[in-house]
Amino acid sequence: MAQQARWIWYPGDFDIWLSNKVQNRRTEKSSFFPVFWKMDNHYVLMDFHKVVNLQQPEEITIRAEGTYNVKIDARLLPGAPEKVLVPAGKHKINVKVFCQEAVPSIYISGKTIFSDSSWLVTFEDKEWIDETGKTSDISATNYLHAAYGNFTNPTQPPSAFKLPVSPQHAIREEVTPRTRLIDFGRETFGYIRLHGLQGSGNLTVYYGESKEEALSANGAETLDQLHIQLADKQDSVMPLSKAFRFVNIVADGNVSLDSVSMLYEYADMPDKGSFTCSDQELNQIYDVARYTLHLCSREFFIDGIKRDRWIWSGDAYQSHLMNYYLMNDNTTVTRTLYALRGKDPVTSHINTIMDYTFYWFLGIYDYYRYTGDQHFIRQNYDRMKSLINWVLARRNKDGLLEGLPGDWVFIDWATGLSKKGEVSFEQLLFARSLETMALCAKLVNDPEGAAYNDMAVDLRKKLFTYYWSDQKNALVHSRVNGQPTETVTRYANMFAIFFDYFNDAQKQAVKQSVLLNNDIQKITTPYMRFYELEALCAMGEQGYVLKEMKDYWGGMLKLGATSFWEEYNPDASGAGHYAMYGRPFGKSLCHAWGASPIYLLGKYYLGVQPLTAGYSTYLVQPALGGLQWMKGEVPTPAGNISLYVSARQIRLKAPAGTGTLRVKSKTPPKGTGISVTNKGENTYDITIQPGREYVINYTAI
Amino acid sequence: MAQQARWIWYPGDFDIWLSNKVQNRRTEKSSFFPVFWKMDNHYVLMDFHKVVNLQQPEEITIRAEGTYNVKIDARLLPGAPEKVLVPAGKHKINVKVFCQEAVPSIYISGKTIFSDSSWLVTFEDKEWIDETGKTSDISATNYLHAAYGNFTNPTQPPSAFKLPVSPQHAIREEVTPRTRLIDFGRETFGYIRLHGLQGSGNLTVYYGESKEEALSANGAETLDQLHIQLADKQDSVMPLSKAFRFVNIVADGNVSLDSVSMLYEYADMPDKGSFTCSDQELNQIYDVARYTLHLCSREFFIDGIKRDRWIWSGDAYQSHLMNYYLMNDNTTVTRTLYALRGKDPVTSHINTIMDYTFYWFLGIYDYYRYTGDQHFIRQNYDRMKSLINWVLARRNKDGLLEGLPGDWVFIDWATGLSKKGEVSFEQLLFARSLETMALCAKLVNDPEGAAYNDMAVDLRKKLFTYYWSDQKNALVHSRVNGQPTETVTRYANMFAIFFDYFNDAQKQAVKQSVLLNNDIQKITTPYMRFYELEALCAMGEQGYVLKEMKDYWGGMLKLGATSFWEEYNPDASGAGHYAMYGRPFGKSLCHAWGASPIYLLGKYYLGVQPLTAGYSTYLVQPALGGLQWMKGEVPTPAGNISLYVSARQIRLKAPAGTGTLRVKSKTPPKGTGISVTNKGENTYDITIQPGREYVINYTAI
Repeated sequence: MAQQARWIWYPGDFDIWLSNKVQNRRTEKSSFFPVFWKMDNHYVLMDFHKVVNLQQPEEITIRAEGTYNVKIDARLLPGAPEKVLVPAGKHKINVKVFCQEAVPSIYISGKTIFSDSSWLVTFEDKEWIDETGKTSDISATNYLHAAYGNFTNPTQPPSAFKLPVSPQHAIREEVTPRTRLIDFGRETFGYIRLHGLQGSGNLTVYYGESKEEALSANGAETLDQLHIQLADKQDSVMPLSKAFRFVNIVADGNVSLDSVSMLYEYADMPDKGSFTCSDQELNQIYDVARYTLHLCSREFFIDGIKRDRWIWSGDAYQSHLMNYYLMNDNTTVTRTLYALRGKDPVTSHINTIMDYTFYWFLGIYDYYRYTGDQHFIRQNYDRMKSLINWVLARRNKDGLLEGLPGDWVFIDWATGLSKKGEVSFEQLLFARSLETMALCAKLVNDPEGAAYNDMAVDLRKKLFTYYWSDQKNALVHSRVNGQPTETVTRYANMFAIFFDYFNDAQKQAVKQSVLLNNDIQKITTPYMRFYELEALCAMGEQGYVLKEMKDYWGGMLKLGATSFWEEYNPDASGAGHYAMYGRPFGKSLCHAWGASPIYLLGKYYLGVQPLTAGYSTYLVQPALGGLQWMKGEVPTPAGNISLYVSARQIRLKAPAGTGTLRVKSKTPPKGTGISVTNKGENTYDITIQPGREYVINYTAI
Repeated sequence: MAQQARWIWYPGDFDIWLSNKVQNRRTEKSSFFPVFWKMDNHYVLMDFHKVVNLQQPEEITIRAEGTYNVKIDARLLPGAPEKVLVPAGKHKINVKVFCQEAVPSIYISGKTIFSDSSWLVTFEDKEWIDETGKTSDISATNYLHAAYGNFTNPTQPPSAFKLPVSPQHAIREEVTPRTRLIDFGRETFGYIRLHGLQGSGNLTVYYGESKEEALSANGAETLDQLHIQLADKQDSVMPLSKAFRFVNIVADGNVSLDSVSMLYEYADMPDKGSFTCSDQELNQIYDVARYTLHLCSREFFIDGIKRDRWIWSGDAYQSHLMNYYLMNDNTTVTRTLYALRGKDPVTSHINTIMDYTFYWFLGIYDYYRYTGDQHFIRQNYDRMKSLINWVLARRNKDGLLEGLPGDWVFIDWATGLSKKGEVSFEQLLFARSLETMALCAKLVNDPEGAAYNDMAVDLRKKLFTYYWSDQKNALVHSRVNGQPTETVTRYANMFAIFFDYFNDAQKQAVKQSVLLNNDIQKITTPYMRFYELEALCAMGEQGYVLKEMKDYWGGMLKLGATSFWEEYNPDASGAGHYAMYGRPFGKSLCHAWGASPIYLLGKYYLGVQPLTAGYSTYLVQPALGGLQWMKGEVPTPAGNISLYVSARQIRLKAPAGTGTLRVKSKTPPKGTGISVTNKGENTYDITIQPGREYVINYTAI
């Protein structure tokens, strides 16, 4: 534990409080446009405590967000002291804070005493005083460890948190007497600044991810309307940050301004991972994906920057996975998971969507695998349990889930997709969620883990008895009135591949009958392309996927994309590419789920993934997929795994854990002091120990 | 429904939000002293809607607390409009509001459209837009009617609510060079004002309910410490209102002030009920009880004004009952019930106390009887259900409740009272709570009502099989390890009388074996005296109770009480009367539960009580208890029942409903056009119709 004081609070509370602020910044045109599900709130009254054992008396400094008191050994100190002398010996320090407007938080610093996650917190201390004056603390079980973020400045409480900004300038302007069209050169996000504003009248800022959108007074999805009354020149910054590449500023004749710039707003998450290769187009795809993910990685992992800017569980799930190969920022993952979950009681699926509830569980499964962070599992476990129990209570008589009133069965944006009855895809995500519960129950020693495991096993069996069609060599899409439907869709089939729910024969069959079968409805969203390409990669089709990536993401680049889109249909043309949801510019041109090459390239080309929690063991299985060479860095909790791969040589260095480098080679791989296991079929495993730079020569197949 | 616009919000949210503010104003000495249970919070995002059908287009004015948008027929209007023209015809108006700091609220006024409780509200509208732009509202069941208070001024949103104040002055001062002891003449509550404050140094205001407390620098329960740095004279008002009769102001030599006054803070709840009689001491008791109840009836019904100032369910329950005979203010009752209940999930008994959970249910039972307000029952029913279900899940194998870890089994402040095992008193309150659930389930057509009824019947049977002792002629106190204990206490026995759980023979037996038996541990709190005297009154012992009232409450008056106390022990002496909780001035000298004569005199002397909800039928059964005459007013939803009673004549007028005047008379009662039924044993029932002034001559027994 770092010897540094931090602002601390109840786990999840800052995350939920901040997510309320962030998600209520959406506007449509000039109108406020909030979410349509329950928003929770922080606990307003919080007890923080720690038992310390001091060699020497120690003075501590206390700051709190809210009204507070301090107790030493259950004795209330006068007033709200900023300095307290804690005597030598063993003592219990309690700080109790009330704050209705923001999250009750404290910051304590002394020589050895610091506010950090060793402090315990509860919203219900049940400490009462009987008629004789005796103080009793009758609560023993409802404490969690305090949570903290990157708030180490005592004068900046968590409520003061704002993303940083930096000034940026336009690259091009088209000015007419009443309009000014500004081009910032690429998709960006921030606050428009109007310099030297003067006069009286109306001014409108139309934002456009495309030039066409900025120029469309009726079509632009976001705009700001100002009523100017300025005798002297003044600068003005718009109140809300927005997504745009272009802005078109339209003003009454007697309103003038000197120039327009912007404050770029960003989350300060440096890249740890990287990828470069012999293919320049792929490098460009990677770079634009990286920029796209950064724009959509803000206080939370949000869906896209123009429109919703909400935390959607299915979208965030993909951002988490990409994050493990780029910024590897744990805090933003857990902050997003807390915000999505909200608080009890559960009254709805996450974001109202059944699949999105399950992605939340899957996100925890992955988070644990990539980070090994058991602390978060323990802190969050009660919320996992109450959510899964809410889901379990909604099963039908066959133990399956179908959409009940108020449930949105989403799956994907796709024409004519049936949501009726019990959809196979939902049962599959449900099974993996139960497996996540079983895993986490084991970590926290919850005896109910066995029951979750049994339910998962049972549900996996049902997937095959209810949905598998020998004739179609696939899982069918759904079951209606107890009967399997005739439709086959890609969703359940591709997930069953990389979940390893299929055996090898089933995988090979499904590859032909579904994945590579043009008669099965095609996927048009990068959202589901993510999983489709993952399934193909998992089956060794990196060559095919490389071509697909260059076609699909390369296709967007050829249309001038500077970030990747919510949806891309090669058959559309011109400004038709920007339409969605029945609106001409409804589509978001910077959507996190468009950045999936980051994940695919890291996990299935560089081929690095954890085998056990936190990379204590891991696999490196490079696949060039036709590239001449590639190199990159993959972040792990202990630092980066560095990798260079050509058809003849692999260079590899890892910071910790035990790795298995798996190569297909015509001849046994060679290198100084390496331990090679021949797995047969030209496959060789080489054990990777930390700290050593491996140089391995081989002949790629 | 009144044609008046009001600020409206989600039921319970303003109540909970305000209770957080109010209950976190407690200080002990100079330290913040908050509650030790979970405090909930308002929903931060709220949808309000109403379907209107207009003959003419109508312009409405909209104000909101928070960020908001407006939709007409699911179409979002630009910006946050203050004026909206609603077209003629049938239209749905939605206003959606986000506010994290205060309760999302709206105020809408037009010619025919007003924000009132006809508007529906939900925290989860689940209104979503599909990929074709279609809007779907998939939620249908989770709407409640909007709630409102007395906020009719569009420029004063609910968050601006403050109790009114009026200036008051001291009656006496004792001034020394450094101290100034001020006597305001009687117990009071408000903000101390220091006039003409000047100089530099420290100044302390010691508050005292007694002179001794104000003069005790170490003992005073509340104080304010000021650091003065004033070159010019200035007035200063203390930030928190406090309880006191005396204040002692101690200042450094170079701090001076001209004078001290106060701002009396009060809830504006006019009296509707009244009582006067031939006994001057009893009149004085009634007046001091009235003042005591008013001081403790503020934003909520609080326990007492000096110390906690919290909403304690058992205390509030008694205030509600007194309220029905004095101010009859429904809003403060429901506000108190909402605040006590908080929100789901239930994590603890109300105030952590098992009995206090049950008083909450009993409070609803009474509220419905006295007011007939079914609307509140419907709005609040889900919260009743989740609380009772939480309780039901805590029953042991015999279906009884015992204190589990974290439960406080309170009963009463009494020396040596055992809380072990299954206490009979708790099971009895539990049974009445289940009866309340059965009653309310019927009102809202919840089919589970039958189950609650069965559980109540079963539990009432168990009360007798497990606790009734033929040998002791009483319910014993508890059951430990499955065996009834030998102890008899008054609690369960007296409640079983006025709950009518005992038959007549049991009542008469218990009266002798418990109520009038000096070997059974005596009750020393006015809190339980309330029920003890009620039980005696319910058995016709008004003469005995009158003497007890004069002894007990009259005893406090003889000691100079200007309001009634938390506890009174005639055997204490001097300042010893002020000690409690191991502290010399720990006792509150103005405690709501001290005001019970208001209830006893209204219900058991004037003898007025509803028989069916909202006084649609009611009983008037006067009992002089030795008084020569008495007269009074008892509030009902339709207005006051006025009553004059002497041993020879009764005069009565009622505004609505059908009453039964029941008198014991040596001869049949006489009066113009009255309908008398002889019930035998000198008891006569006279039917009372509304609006008529009855004058009945009789000869009291």
